[in-house]
Amino acid sequence: MEEEMAVASDYIAVKAEEDGVCIIGLTRGRDTKFHHTEKLDKGEVYIAQFTEMTSAIKIHGRAKVYCKHGIIDAE
Amino acid sequence: MEEEMAVASDYIAVKAEEDGVCIIGLTRGRDTKFHHTEKLDKGEVYIAQFTEMTSAIKIHGRAKVYCKHGIIDAE
Amino acid sequence: MEEEMAVASDYIAVKAEEDGVCIIGLTRGRDTKFHHTEKLDKGEVYIAQFTEMTSAIKIHGRAKVYCKHGIIDAE
Amino acid sequence: MEEEMAVASDYIAVKAEEDGVCIIGLTRGRDTKFHHTEKLDKGEVYIAQFTEMTSAIKIHGRAKVYCKHGIIDAE
Amino acid sequence: MEEEMAVASDYIAVKAEEDGVCIIGLTRGRDTKFHHTEKLDKGEVYIAQFTEMTSAIKIHGRAKVYCKHGIIDAE
Amino acid sequence: MEEEMAVASDYIAVKAEEDGVCIIGLTRGRDTKFHHTEKLDKGEVYIAQFTEMTSAIKIHGRAKVYCKHGIIDAE
Amino acid sequence: MEEEMAVASDYIAVKAEEDGVCIIGLTRGRDTKFHHTEKLDKGEVYIAQFTEMTSAIKIHGRAKVYCKHGIIDAE
Amino acid sequence: MEEEMAVASDYIAVKAEEDGVCIIGLTRGRDTKFHHTEKLDKGEVYIAQFTEMTSAIKIHGRAKVYCKHGIIDAE
Amino acid sequence: MEEEMAVASDYIAVKAEEDGVCIIGLTRGRDTKFHHTEKLDKGEVYIAQFTEMTSAIKIHGRAKVYCKHGIIDAE
Amino acid sequence: MEEEMAVASDYIAVKAEEDGVCIIGLTRGRDTKFHHTEKLDKGEVYIAQFTEMTSAIKIHGRAKVYCKHGIIDAE
Amino acid sequence: MEEEMAVASDYIAVKAEEDGVCIIGLTRGRDTKFHHTEKLDKGEVYIAQFTEMTSAIKIHGRAKVYCKHGIIDAE
Amino acid sequence: MEEEMAVASDYIAVKAEEDGVCIIGLTRGRDTKFHHTEKLDKGEVYIAQFTEMTSAIKIHGRAKVYCKHGIIDAE
Repeated sequence: MEEEMAVASDYIAVKAEEDGVCIIGLTRGRDTKFHHTEKLDKGEVYIAQFTEMTSAIKIHGRAKVYCKHGIIDAE
Repeated sequence: MEEEMAVASDYIAVKAEEDGVCIIGLTRGRDTKFHHTEKLDKGEVYIAQFTEMTSAIKIHGRAKVYCKHGIIDAE
Repeated sequence: MEEEMAVASDYIAVKAEEDGVCIIGLTRGRDTKFHHTEKLDKGEVYIAQFTEMTSAIKIHGRAKVYCKHGIIDAE
Repeated sequence: MEEEMAVASDYIAVKAEEDGVCIIGLTRGRDTKFHHTEKLDKGEVYIAQFTEMTSAIKIHGRAKVYCKHGIIDAE
Repeated sequence: MEEEMAVASDYIAVKAEEDGVCIIGLTRGRDTKFHHTEKLDKGEVYIAQFTEMTSAIKIHGRAKVYCKHGIIDAE
Repeated sequence: MEEEMAVASDYIAVKAEEDGVCIIGLTRGRDTKFHHTEKLDKGEVYIAQFTEMTSAIKIHGRAKVYCKHGIIDAE
Repeated sequence: MEEEMAVASDYIAVKAEEDGVCIIGLTRGRDTKFHHTEKLDKGEVYIAQFTEMTSAIKIHGRAKVYCKHGIIDAE
Repeated sequence: MEEEMAVASDYIAVKAEEDGVCIIGLTRGRDTKFHHTEKLDKGEVYIAQFTEMTSAIKIHGRAKVYCKHGIIDAE
Repeated sequence: MEEEMAVASDYIAVKAEEDGVCIIGLTRGRDTKFHHTEKLDKGEVYIAQFTEMTSAIKIHGRAKVYCKHGIIDAE
Repeated sequence: MEEEMAVASDYIAVKAEEDGVCIIGLTRGRDTKFHHTEKLDKGEVYIAQFTEMTSAIKIHGRAKVYCKHGIIDAE
Repeated sequence: MEEEMAVASDYIAVKAEEDGVCIIGLTRGRDTKFHHTEKLDKGEVYIAQFTEMTSAIKIHGRAKVYCKHGIIDAE
Repeated sequence: MEEEMAVASDYIAVKAEEDGVCIIGLTRGRDTKFHHTEKLDKGEVYIAQFTEMTSAIKIHGRAKVYCKHGIIDAE
């Protein structure tokens, strides 16, 4: 598997503002299914790249999402 | 399948401002059909890349769409 | 089909300001024909890349078109 | 046909300000002939890339032309 | 013929300010000869790339020429 | 293993603001599991790249996280 | 002949401010000889790339020369 | 071993503000272990690249850490 | 002879401010000899690239020299 | 040995502010050992690249260190 | 001999401010010897690239030296 | 020997402010030894690239050193 480009790909950062914030990775390709769910407690920070597995990310719960288009308040 | 470029491609972010916002991925290539619909509840944030499957994205419902041309209010 | 470059190509965003806005993709190459028409209801947002099938896009109806040359009011 | 570069090439946008605006694509290469004419009604927006078929574009009728050198009023 | 680079090459825009403006393409290579003349009526806009055939362009008549070095009034 | 790109990839910096801050590396690929936990005492600074093993990083405890989207206060 | 790079090379623009302005292309390589002279009438605009034939350009007569180092008044 | 990219990779600088500051290099790859510890006396400056061996760096003790995300006070 | 890069190389512009300004091209490689002298009359503009033959240029006489480091008055 | 990239790699500059400043090069790769020590007298300036031998540099003694993250006073 | 890169390499400009200014090219590689001396009279301008022969240039006499780090008064 | 990259590598400039300023080139690779010393008289300017022979440069004597990190006064 060619992981060269993946290592240099963009990343987002999420800061949980309550317990139980979910960061859900969805699969790249023909099917767009959940493949990983990371639970964050209040105050935790999670930084994740897009990978050859993940082409979409869903954030559920009160959190600040940092990406190249700005800072977004998930609620 | 060459996924190298795909991993580094651009992404958009969507924040739902009501329950039931739909993010609909449309297929790349000869046919432009729905291939995935993601439903968001109010306050959820969804971040998605263009992929080798998806060359168009439709947002239905009240939401803020963050892309490189600015922030767009879907309604 | 080489889809590598296509995945990273530019995209435009359209926000419908009335029901029935049409986003029409025209074919690349010798013939420039309609190959896909997407209908938008008021408030929907549509984000589309140029692809190996589509080298021109026509917007019909009241809408805001976001592209790298600015924001254009279709009417 | 190598369409990789073409997919990523620049595009112009045209907004018709009266009915019957013509966007005329002229052929690349030895002969520079009309190969496609797209007619726009008032308010329609047309976005087109240069392609391996088209190296020149003529706009006839009242329209706003958006390109990287600015906004030009066709009349 | 390698048209990849050509598709992505720079372009100029010309807006005719009187009838009969001529956009003349001159051939690349050993001989620099006219190979195409496009006549514009008042108000028409013409957008043209340098191609593997054309390495020089002459504008005759009252027109505004848009290129990367600025806007030039042809007379 | 191709480590060339990895060496040049982006990095984040974390400054612990209390004892026991955890920097947790999560694995790239099909499974997203913890593969390394680094514990920091108050005032220590940790600088880490994304690697061919790590595509996500979780920060637990009071710390300042420095990344390209800004400075984030983990708590 | 490799014309790929040539198509994307830089260009200058010249606006004649009197009749009979000469744009003289000089040959690239061992000999630097005139290989083409283009005569401009007052008000004509001429836009020319460096090519695999031309590595120097001489402007004779009253004209404005637009290049990447600024605008130069030839006299 | 491909060291080409490594030579051009980013570097950080550390200035010790007390005796005994430790710069600890952690190994790239499956295991993230200490592979080198450099001790600095007060006032010494240490400049280090990420290498094919090192993908993380830990700074222990009072020091100023200079990296592309700013200047961080280790304590 | 590889002329691809040469076509895209940098250029300087010279405007003669008296008759008899000399633009002298010196040869690239082992020997640095005059290989071409271009004489300019007052007001003429000369634009020249570095080529595979020319790696140095000498300007003799009253002239303005435009290059990427600014505008220099030769005397 | 591939020295191409190395020739173009980044460099730092050090100005000694007392006699006996040491610039110590540490080896790249599995072992991080001293491989060269350069002693500077007061006022001397030393400019050094990272090389295929050197991936870390230690400065001991009163000196100003110029690198891309700013100017650092070694003491 | 690969001259492609050389043609596109950087250049410096020198304006002599007295007669007899010397521009001395020193050889690249194992030996750093004079290989060319160009004498300038007052007011002459000399523009020279680094080449596959020349990796250092010495300027002797009163002159202004234009390079990417600014303008330097040789005396 | 691959000199392509070397020709395009960065350079520093030194202006001697007293007689006898020494510019000392140190060898790249396993051993870091003096391989060339250039003596400058007051007011002379010396411009030197890093080369496949030279990865460090030492300046001894009163001089101004121009590099990409600023202007440094050697003494």
